[in-house]
Amino acid sequence: MSIASIYEPIQEGLGMVEEKLKDFARVDFPWIVEPLTYVLESSGKRIRPGLTLLAGRFYRYDLETLIPMATAIELFHNATLVHDDAVDKALLRRGKTAVNSLWGEGIAVLLGDYLFSISADLVCSIGNFRVMSLFAKTLTEISSGQLRETFNAYSWRQDREGYYEQIYSKTASLFAAATGTGAVLSEAPEEAVAALTSYGSNLGMAFQVVDDVLDVIGDEGEMGKPVGSDLLQGTLTLPIILLVEQHPQDNVLGELPEKPGDQVEVARVIEMVRNSPVVDECYQIAGGFLSQACGALEGLPDNVSRRSLLDLADYVIERRK
Amino acid sequence: MSIASIYEPIQEGLGMVEEKLKDFARVDFPWIVEPLTYVLESSGKRIRPGLTLLAGRFYRYDLETLIPMATAIELFHNATLVHDDAVDKALLRRGKTAVNSLWGEGIAVLLGDYLFSISADLVCSIGNFRVMSLFAKTLTEISSGQLRETFNAYSWRQDREGYYEQIYSKTASLFAAATGTGAVLSEAPEEAVAALTSYGSNLGMAFQVVDDVLDVIGDEGEMGKPVGSDLLQGTLTLPIILLVEQHPQDNVLGELPEKPGDQVEVARVIEMVRNSPVVDECYQIAGGFLSQACGALEGLPDNVSRRSLLDLADYVIERRK
Repeated sequence: MSIASIYEPIQEGLGMVEEKLKDFARVDFPWIVEPLTYVLESSGKRIRPGLTLLAGRFYRYDLETLIPMATAIELFHNATLVHDDAVDKALLRRGKTAVNSLWGEGIAVLLGDYLFSISADLVCSIGNFRVMSLFAKTLTEISSGQLRETFNAYSWRQDREGYYEQIYSKTASLFAAATGTGAVLSEAPEEAVAALTSYGSNLGMAFQVVDDVLDVIGDEGEMGKPVGSDLLQGTLTLPIILLVEQHPQDNVLGELPEKPGDQVEVARVIEMVRNSPVVDECYQIAGGFLSQACGALEGLPDNVSRRSLLDLADYVIERRK
Repeated sequence: MSIASIYEPIQEGLGMVEEKLKDFARVDFPWIVEPLTYVLESSGKRIRPGLTLLAGRFYRYDLETLIPMATAIELFHNATLVHDDAVDKALLRRGKTAVNSLWGEGIAVLLGDYLFSISADLVCSIGNFRVMSLFAKTLTEISSGQLRETFNAYSWRQDREGYYEQIYSKTASLFAAATGTGAVLSEAPEEAVAALTSYGSNLGMAFQVVDDVLDVIGDEGEMGKPVGSDLLQGTLTLPIILLVEQHPQDNVLGELPEKPGDQVEVARVIEMVRNSPVVDECYQIAGGFLSQACGALEGLPDNVSRRSLLDLADYVIERRK
């Protein structure tokens, strides 16, 4: 199932989001235009704004409020990517040179702040307290999670529970905010808001698990970033945690570096994962989250949006980049 | 006039802001507590929350809304300081080691994001659209101004107008938001909101002009940062712009560096400023902004808050750090 056909019911809306993103890059400040255009045109899969629109299409599909909301979610997502790359001193993002590599870390920090601020302004403009508060709380969740990940980097001690908390903070919380705000703005009944929020949260968990597996088994060319980059940056992910669980007696992680550097040890651990049943197990776990996501939709009207959300679950587990 | 006596009418309120800031440092996430406490207890002069409370004391002095607003303004201000220091790779802040120097730039970026997010959440909790929107627009103003400053660093071409725009973005806009939100939340009449916003904006302009003069003539020990740090970071400020204006035929700026480095040339320019009438002229300009600030208060009730705001204007021009 292609992402284009999944987005079919919200094609017009997504086009409007794309236009609005372009408008933001056409600001009066020449010093911002270039990096802003660079970031906003590095078109990712637009999954988060897609979720807001699909979740908002079950009841009152009001593009007046849903377009700014979906756009704000995407702007905010890009802000976090730009800052994460600055923090990680990443070279690449989506196969292109990262902002921090191109313009320096200082510009990346300030550009991320600018993206945060215009996203907050956009959410304010909608004039709905509940989505505003949900949005602000999601910022806090994400930034506190990123702080934890950075403080814990290279400590190589983390269990599944800690991992799940971590990926909820960094990924699933924004997916949940994307569907939750869409539901609220479309005046969905409370049970539907809860169901769509649960869908978003579980889809986000699965998305991140798959992301972490692809970091180990993916194709560098397709992914646009080096294989093993999580380990290289000191982040312990599910495949590695499962590998350690399966070899309780062995010192599987061996001499993993305590700071950025030793690529040989990282390559050895990546190779162990690739040759173990761990990858299948990760996909089963991702599948479990997706079952919960789809299960949450059961009470909702059976319409094109629901079918797209179900298809999106398949897409998330089948994706290769 | 001491800052303590200026704050006398809002002493209780400022104490509550201080408590609320301490509460934020007592979060459940151990990895945040240390840097958060470090930043929030590096007590600055608390001018911005002081402004919100003083501006909010003319009409309905409602601490229920003013305390979270004043706290959010201070949290937000600290977020910008932490990010600015990360961008400038500053060693010191208020005489203490800067967050980026102590924990690294990555932590500084994420801690700043966290401070932004809790300030936004706090403003949301007040439940007033106008202050929320004012707050979000101020974020955009500040971050766009900081981007401009960073893009223009080391270019050594800026006139007074550009400088005024720049310091409005980076300093005066937040002062204006501090007094403006205080006025709005106290249900001040529209003319009073405009007057207090104008006071805040002009006070902020004067504050930054004095800051930029102190960067040239100040005492390193009192200031807690090296003299000439603006020039060293590639930022052209009013004293230097006036020096260039007064020597239209000479190449006053000589061989100022195009990137961080040459301290000898910077020391030469600083010495020229110190031995010229430029410093007095800067104080006259700051005085002009303060006259406008105080003039804006003329139509307001003559009470202890107004007297404190007038005294604050004197304090701003007399301060030595």
